[in-house]
Amino acid sequence: MGVTVPPAPRIAYLGPEGTFTHQAALDWARRDGAADGPASAEPLRTVTDVHDAVAAGTADVGVVAVESSVEGYVVPSLDALLSSADVVAVDEIALDVSFDAFVRPGHGELTVVSAHPHGLAQCTGFVAGSGLATAPASSNAAACRDAGPGTIALGPTICGELYGLDTYARAVEDVRGGRTRFLVLTRRGVADAYLGRARAAGETDWKTMLAITPSVTGPGVLARITAAFGDRKVNMSSLVTRPLKAQESRYVFVVTLDDAPWSPGVRDVLGDLLAAGDALKTLGLFPAGAGFRTLDGVLDPDHVPVGSVSADDASDALARGLLW
Amino acid sequence: MGVTVPPAPRIAYLGPEGTFTHQAALDWARRDGAADGPASAEPLRTVTDVHDAVAAGTADVGVVAVESSVEGYVVPSLDALLSSADVVAVDEIALDVSFDAFVRPGHGELTVVSAHPHGLAQCTGFVAGSGLATAPASSNAAACRDAGPGTIALGPTICGELYGLDTYARAVEDVRGGRTRFLVLTRRGVADAYLGRARAAGETDWKTMLAITPSVTGPGVLARITAAFGDRKVNMSSLVTRPLKAQESRYVFVVTLDDAPWSPGVRDVLGDLLAAGDALKTLGLFPAGAGFRTLDGVLDPDHVPVGSVSADDASDALARGLLW
Repeated sequence: MGVTVPPAPRIAYLGPEGTFTHQAALDWARRDGAADGPASAEPLRTVTDVHDAVAAGTADVGVVAVESSVEGYVVPSLDALLSSADVVAVDEIALDVSFDAFVRPGHGELTVVSAHPHGLAQCTGFVAGSGLATAPASSNAAACRDAGPGTIALGPTICGELYGLDTYARAVEDVRGGRTRFLVLTRRGVADAYLGRARAAGETDWKTMLAITPSVTGPGVLARITAAFGDRKVNMSSLVTRPLKAQESRYVFVVTLDDAPWSPGVRDVLGDLLAAGDALKTLGLFPAGAGFRTLDGVLDPDHVPVGSVSADDASDALARGLLW
Repeated sequence: MGVTVPPAPRIAYLGPEGTFTHQAALDWARRDGAADGPASAEPLRTVTDVHDAVAAGTADVGVVAVESSVEGYVVPSLDALLSSADVVAVDEIALDVSFDAFVRPGHGELTVVSAHPHGLAQCTGFVAGSGLATAPASSNAAACRDAGPGTIALGPTICGELYGLDTYARAVEDVRGGRTRFLVLTRRGVADAYLGRARAAGETDWKTMLAITPSVTGPGVLARITAAFGDRKVNMSSLVTRPLKAQESRYVFVVTLDDAPWSPGVRDVLGDLLAAGDALKTLGLFPAGAGFRTLDGVLDPDHVPVGSVSADDASDALARGLLW
């Protein structure tokens, strides 16, 4: 179709400037070969605005957060993908999430800690230790930009220089090593250019995000769908149930597969699901190495949910843990 | 053990007052037989505070939101249950979520719309139509309580009388019929009293929330777990993958089952999972009828995600939808 990947893409991202998403957009453009960064990087107000800019072609790509290792999926990003006919994810990028605490130079008595509610939730130890009230903001960058003389604002490191703030404390998050995964969105008609470039570069390890909407729901629908994947030896690394809006207890399943939709096994599964009457949509498709690492290894026992029981526990412990 | 259900429970809920959670707590206490409501209803600041009050016995029960039909699971509520050794859910209650828009009597020029970010996200049409800026608040009730003369605050109907506000517009949410589901939490050692009362009243239809932590992760772990349920004919109505904190790409699966843990089928599944080395924890257990309805029926085709394809679509439409 003659569609090619622009060497310096015009990027729309969920703003305002100074967010982790802003940093992810710049990092992705540089990794993608545009050494000087993107042709432009425009902060937009909502996830829907980013989708609209990509669909209309006023941006070549859009960047939005989709999953946090601490907070889980970013539901509005999933729902925007489900609701968007012309936009698909063709790449992902993951960032370490670390919050610094900033103050205005020459600040007065500090009275509040401000950040997005999610930022406040990720820094509860620092907030509690400060003894200050919390002031929720529409984003961490907005908290930093708008910080008054009595405010400690929490945000990404880049906010310090962007908004002329002094660093009060570094890395104040509760959980070190948290990461956020971002999707890189393009128009569906351009997806082949991005995917073809990665295939031409030798990429063979893919992940696919798929929406499965059963035509008939009821007991067993989830078992039927997971069995369809098991029968074709296709691994699901994640499965999320999303309620269909205004349709209580009706669900669409968002599944992440460890392969590409053109692989023989996935093609077979998709054919089986279509034959069963399910409606399907590929929401995203990207090289597997760029985001979170795939599942492997053995869990640290310290990270099993407290109060869990195992096979070698005594019967009274099993009864207490399981309530069986 | 002689533990009984208090006739008028002391309730701790995620405050402040005037939230949907406050309303759910009062509705649950009245439904539960305390015609005059609970002995006390104390708003607490965080989900963790509610868990701590229940674990310490300063509250008989705690009430927190766990799932919205629009926004999905409330991740901090899930994580608090995963992290709480002594607290378990023994009931649930669902509320219709409807936002009214309030203003101060004799208000001035209106300049901002204020609500929790989730409230703003559920009323995007009203917010856009108002042409006003948004002001995120820590809760809808806080937005109503703190509303100044230039503010439209969005919140539950009860906020009008609680905070002396005039109703500017009713039911301004984007999606009518959205519902939120709340968990009723008790100490694990008291759970038998609540469950026994429901069983004595003839309840036979149960739902169980179970946390499954695989000891070994890797391709196929999800298929193994869903197959364990399928083999024993136990239906999962929902499955959520939650990353283990600080352990990127390591997951705990939170599963909702359409039966009680003491039913023969579920006991068999739990035994199979224990034998496979998984760590298990029953997070909650409640009569099935009180929350969202169970999955059944046929989907409205209008609610399938836009851009989905089905078996009878032409090959070019399939290629566009699936990217296969």
